[in-house]
Amino acid sequence: MSDAPRIEALPAGLVNLADFEAAAQARVSAKPWGEAAWAYLNGGAADEITLRANRQAWDDLRLLPRVLRRLDGGHCRVRLLGRELQHPLLLAPIAYQKLFHDDGELAVAHAAAAQSAGLILSAQASVEMERVAAVMRSEPQAGPLWFQLYWRDDREFMQALLQRVEAAGYEALVLTVDAPVHGARDRERRAGFKLPEGIRAVNLGGRKQPLELQPGQSALFDGLLPRAAGWAEVEWLRAHSRLPLLLKGVAHEDDARQALQLGVSGLIVSNHGGRTLDSLPPTAALLPRLRAELGPEAMLLVDGGIRRGSDVLKAMALGANAVLLGRPYVHALAAAGALGVARALRLLRDELEIAMALSGCRTLADAGPQLLWRD
Amino acid sequence: MSDAPRIEALPAGLVNLADFEAAAQARVSAKPWGEAAWAYLNGGAADEITLRANRQAWDDLRLLPRVLRRLDGGHCRVRLLGRELQHPLLLAPIAYQKLFHDDGELAVAHAAAAQSAGLILSAQASVEMERVAAVMRSEPQAGPLWFQLYWRDDREFMQALLQRVEAAGYEALVLTVDAPVHGARDRERRAGFKLPEGIRAVNLGGRKQPLELQPGQSALFDGLLPRAAGWAEVEWLRAHSRLPLLLKGVAHEDDARQALQLGVSGLIVSNHGGRTLDSLPPTAALLPRLRAELGPEAMLLVDGGIRRGSDVLKAMALGANAVLLGRPYVHALAAAGALGVARALRLLRDELEIAMALSGCRTLADAGPQLLWRD
Amino acid sequence: MSDAPRIEALPAGLVNLADFEAAAQARVSAKPWGEAAWAYLNGGAADEITLRANRQAWDDLRLLPRVLRRLDGGHCRVRLLGRELQHPLLLAPIAYQKLFHDDGELAVAHAAAAQSAGLILSAQASVEMERVAAVMRSEPQAGPLWFQLYWRDDREFMQALLQRVEAAGYEALVLTVDAPVHGARDRERRAGFKLPEGIRAVNLGGRKQPLELQPGQSALFDGLLPRAAGWAEVEWLRAHSRLPLLLKGVAHEDDARQALQLGVSGLIVSNHGGRTLDSLPPTAALLPRLRAELGPEAMLLVDGGIRRGSDVLKAMALGANAVLLGRPYVHALAAAGALGVARALRLLRDELEIAMALSGCRTLADAGPQLLWRD
Amino acid sequence: MSDAPRIEALPAGLVNLADFEAAAQARVSAKPWGEAAWAYLNGGAADEITLRANRQAWDDLRLLPRVLRRLDGGHCRVRLLGRELQHPLLLAPIAYQKLFHDDGELAVAHAAAAQSAGLILSAQASVEMERVAAVMRSEPQAGPLWFQLYWRDDREFMQALLQRVEAAGYEALVLTVDAPVHGARDRERRAGFKLPEGIRAVNLGGRKQPLELQPGQSALFDGLLPRAAGWAEVEWLRAHSRLPLLLKGVAHEDDARQALQLGVSGLIVSNHGGRTLDSLPPTAALLPRLRAELGPEAMLLVDGGIRRGSDVLKAMALGANAVLLGRPYVHALAAAGALGVARALRLLRDELEIAMALSGCRTLADAGPQLLWRD
Repeated sequence: MSDAPRIEALPAGLVNLADFEAAAQARVSAKPWGEAAWAYLNGGAADEITLRANRQAWDDLRLLPRVLRRLDGGHCRVRLLGRELQHPLLLAPIAYQKLFHDDGELAVAHAAAAQSAGLILSAQASVEMERVAAVMRSEPQAGPLWFQLYWRDDREFMQALLQRVEAAGYEALVLTVDAPVHGARDRERRAGFKLPEGIRAVNLGGRKQPLELQPGQSALFDGLLPRAAGWAEVEWLRAHSRLPLLLKGVAHEDDARQALQLGVSGLIVSNHGGRTLDSLPPTAALLPRLRAELGPEAMLLVDGGIRRGSDVLKAMALGANAVLLGRPYVHALAAAGALGVARALRLLRDELEIAMALSGCRTLADAGPQLLWRD
Repeated sequence: MSDAPRIEALPAGLVNLADFEAAAQARVSAKPWGEAAWAYLNGGAADEITLRANRQAWDDLRLLPRVLRRLDGGHCRVRLLGRELQHPLLLAPIAYQKLFHDDGELAVAHAAAAQSAGLILSAQASVEMERVAAVMRSEPQAGPLWFQLYWRDDREFMQALLQRVEAAGYEALVLTVDAPVHGARDRERRAGFKLPEGIRAVNLGGRKQPLELQPGQSALFDGLLPRAAGWAEVEWLRAHSRLPLLLKGVAHEDDARQALQLGVSGLIVSNHGGRTLDSLPPTAALLPRLRAELGPEAMLLVDGGIRRGSDVLKAMALGANAVLLGRPYVHALAAAGALGVARALRLLRDELEIAMALSGCRTLADAGPQLLWRD
Repeated sequence: MSDAPRIEALPAGLVNLADFEAAAQARVSAKPWGEAAWAYLNGGAADEITLRANRQAWDDLRLLPRVLRRLDGGHCRVRLLGRELQHPLLLAPIAYQKLFHDDGELAVAHAAAAQSAGLILSAQASVEMERVAAVMRSEPQAGPLWFQLYWRDDREFMQALLQRVEAAGYEALVLTVDAPVHGARDRERRAGFKLPEGIRAVNLGGRKQPLELQPGQSALFDGLLPRAAGWAEVEWLRAHSRLPLLLKGVAHEDDARQALQLGVSGLIVSNHGGRTLDSLPPTAALLPRLRAELGPEAMLLVDGGIRRGSDVLKAMALGANAVLLGRPYVHALAAAGALGVARALRLLRDELEIAMALSGCRTLADAGPQLLWRD
Repeated sequence: MSDAPRIEALPAGLVNLADFEAAAQARVSAKPWGEAAWAYLNGGAADEITLRANRQAWDDLRLLPRVLRRLDGGHCRVRLLGRELQHPLLLAPIAYQKLFHDDGELAVAHAAAAQSAGLILSAQASVEMERVAAVMRSEPQAGPLWFQLYWRDDREFMQALLQRVEAAGYEALVLTVDAPVHGARDRERRAGFKLPEGIRAVNLGGRKQPLELQPGQSALFDGLLPRAAGWAEVEWLRAHSRLPLLLKGVAHEDDARQALQLGVSGLIVSNHGGRTLDSLPPTAALLPRLRAELGPEAMLLVDGGIRRGSDVLKAMALGANAVLLGRPYVHALAAAGALGVARALRLLRDELEIAMALSGCRTLADAGPQLLWRD
């Protein structure tokens, strides 16, 4: 079967996720489009203030541990949309993963399945959604499988997409709401990134309509933004799919409340990995405020800058129900394919379990605000 | 016509205003006076604490975006002195622009006119004010055209200057009040900057009277400062010109209130780009305090460290009615003449529109304090 | 006698503890296992945030001195567990010191004895506990001699160990409670550290039982943690040894209170030198909170990042009864054996006395919170 | 006359005090004892935290200027001990200035006299106090001339010294109280500084008694500190000299109050240039607290990290009556002798006047807390 995972040797000396990044850079650079793709993957918007702030904000949090508790039989399981997961790690939607490894999203699916991680496939995946789903289904212990999408102003197209997603067995929809237009990703633009021949969003057929502008009109305000999603489109999605819907990129509590009132199942607290509007607050700052505003029942996931098991624990302590990993798993993919991603996931989970043990958390329910040190 | 813009090739790879600075440095260095002129343009006072703080203060502000709002038909128009402007960008007064490009202020005027930006001509411009005005008038969509001046203790001279400014079609006067004496611009002094042959303040005729000091007198307190503007001179200007008057460089709220009481039309919140007294607060700190003290009706513009569309949006959120761009447009002038300045203006406006779209602002009226994240 | 100290020449130019670190690195690198052992000694967990924060937190404290007080006959003596000590310095438990010098813990004991410092022998010492105790007993002015241990889930083994410790003349037990499992010490793992032939924990006989796990069980939660110490084990230790018991690694005030209620004699405020869970608060932050919560009578020692006499004074001002020195004395051991450690101890004590004199403290009882400057 | 100032060429390009430091380093390095003397002059205690903090604290203060005020006839005069001074700059006591220039303190006196600066001669001056006084007396516009001293536990010696100081025409005494023992100046110790042949404290005759210690006694607490000054010695000095007495190095408000109650005329807020106890607060933090505690009438001078005219203005705004310049004038001495020091003083005064003009201060009485920006 062509969709069986290719097994590669793991580079030596990988002891944390940063090591995967270094290993990946060497491999990606060897590709013809390597340098530009690297800028595309790792760059952020403008001066990358938010990109750096995401990392820094987790680092700046301090844990106040408990000792001498009995932790026998502890675990890092969480419940999400009615399922019990082995651990709270999901893979964030990232486009065009064939840029970084020939197996692209398939390799990632194999790793996610093997390590019981959730997978949120990007609408701009470079592999057919059905093949990814088949890999996940083949493993009984696999984590949840969700589908991320952007709104396209073509209801016929959207309806067909939703039907295909449901038919393929995806369990939830994730609508990205923080990128109605592209951010100014200077690093990527300077590198002159464009998709190489043969890598494309294979799940998105149809044709985008060209912009038709009058002289003096703004491409943005008069061209692109009228086609972007609003609250009405969220309602339309709720009405036209039986799948639970999550919104990714909500920052303001009023928007969060409105989403929940419209029947949205959960929110992914995100600043798009620092790739849209530079100057957004780090997600480690957004998360606790949203949790405080929305109460304990709302489903809140978070991404952005998670690199350590202690970051995952901090996110849970700040109120996350689960955590998305982004660029690091693509680094692992580039470094060593499916095995690389599996190893990165295992490593992060191990770090999480160690962090729990060392801070006296038997389960993640023990990780609340009291775990965080206040000066 | 000699005043038609020279069209030059844009250097490749200009994706943000910082790129123009790099491109400019290469071109300016090639001039005989290049290194000194570069120090003159980019240097600040003393240790350049304020120069750096200006930039840092914008970077330190975080935006809290809204999502899923309908932004169709949005725009970045503002009203200023009774005119509607396409966008809130004006070019700050900067002296002797022929130092950086043979076309000097003329090239800048062509770009401002083409991009509908406002232009505040420096009294120390190296091109005749009438030629600059003619370029601006030739473009119906051109932004406002204002004239900046320093007080000279010679009322006859001043009256003639005001008449010439009015006759040339300038729409407002900007009196700079934060530089009664030169700041200690160490970088510039170390570079030994002096005006090269043939570049001078062509609009300032007359002769400055030499200082006549008694032994033991202070050149500053007994020589220069008695000739500097005070509130009486502001009143004199109000009485002797029909043009609206703005003050540039007011920092203290009591001074701001007094200015408005004397009929001043507006204030430009500025620390002179960090070029006068090192240690002044960054303008991003001064602006919100003045807005809070003066109420919503006062006209407040701001300059200092604006390099990004998100900086412009932050300035508007902090209470600015419009924003001045300083050194960056001279970098663009040096890098590629009129086309360079036009490109820089377009780029900054595009960044502003993207920032608005990504933070959910349909118009700049949506950019208020609630757009800023408070920790 | 083979246990007499070898006398080596001190490297020139050692004026502070940082100099010993530099001198040590050169000597350690020359050993076959040098680079890895260096990483083992100096590395911390993960990104070493806590390792750095420990140092920074002492540096960030400011002293507010008194002047013109009569300090004649002052001293830096303290009382600990009923003994009067010449000064408040103890040597923290560090494993396998033969990695750094052939004389290992014996050289350290000679220095501690000569300089009247306390010594806390690590259970993982590479020299027999009786030989260390004999060296300390040979010097009447020697400081206290304590024994550090980890819990092993084998009561027979533990009982034998306790009897041997008591018989050898150790005066107190220190149970390390902040490391039920290993931290992720990336630097050490990257260096591939393992114990060289001939260096081992000579005082720990017996055999650890291998983990027996079911498929799907967590090595951590189902294997290691069930064997770790809990509060019941603390009570067992109290019941099975007549020696005073201290806990090392308590951070939370509730744990501290529980320990004192169970008859624990004192606490060592520690984050294990940044070697267990990265993200723990610096000990200079933990200490004053514990002191405030527990009141003036509780016995609190502190370690982590102490490098200067002024750090010791700050620790005392924050409420410590004494202070542990860790890595620096091993640097001194590596640099020049027993003489190196003695010199380092003398140097630190001299710095402490100077700091007392310059801040107006006649004795350490004068070092309270009022000695610390609050902004 | 041998005491006439040698006139040297000023190095080119000196635009601020930092330039003098660079110029000085080149000249000092050429001396046989150059490197060690440079470490002695510029080094601070231990990790030089306080040394750096002194500078940083001035930089961190922001000025909030007023504009359009009439400043004609302004000046920077201050009153001190009943005299009106042209400006608030005094030269701090620094030992052994012949280390840096053959003319040593004499050159400095010529410059101080020419620039109307105050001079505080160090008791450890390398030139006879009478020759220094003669230079100062020769210039009618010279600033105040004070004498700094340390307590020596020999009342006969002290009485002779006081008589000589008075006879030589010194106007005040400055007792340094923050250095009863040497600080641990690591940089200086590492450089192996010792006084070269022929440079010594020529004004301090007599012989220091050697320490006589019993075994087990502390050189510090039992040897040096019993000889140090206490409050009784302050009273003795008040009783045995008609000169006003200032204390240098008081940090705590209770000590300050006690000093004033004993008839001390004023305090010099100082941390000894970061040379005694590392970790002392920067003087820019100590000064406003002391001013707030002591009220407006107390005489408070300040030193430490002053390098800019704006620093002087900030110090005055924080409550100083005058300001001491330390290392920078010795840099100027080394760079160009008397002319160098004169130029440095003029430059700093010019910067001060510019800072006053640019912040709207006609006199230094206008520089109060309202001049400082509060976030």
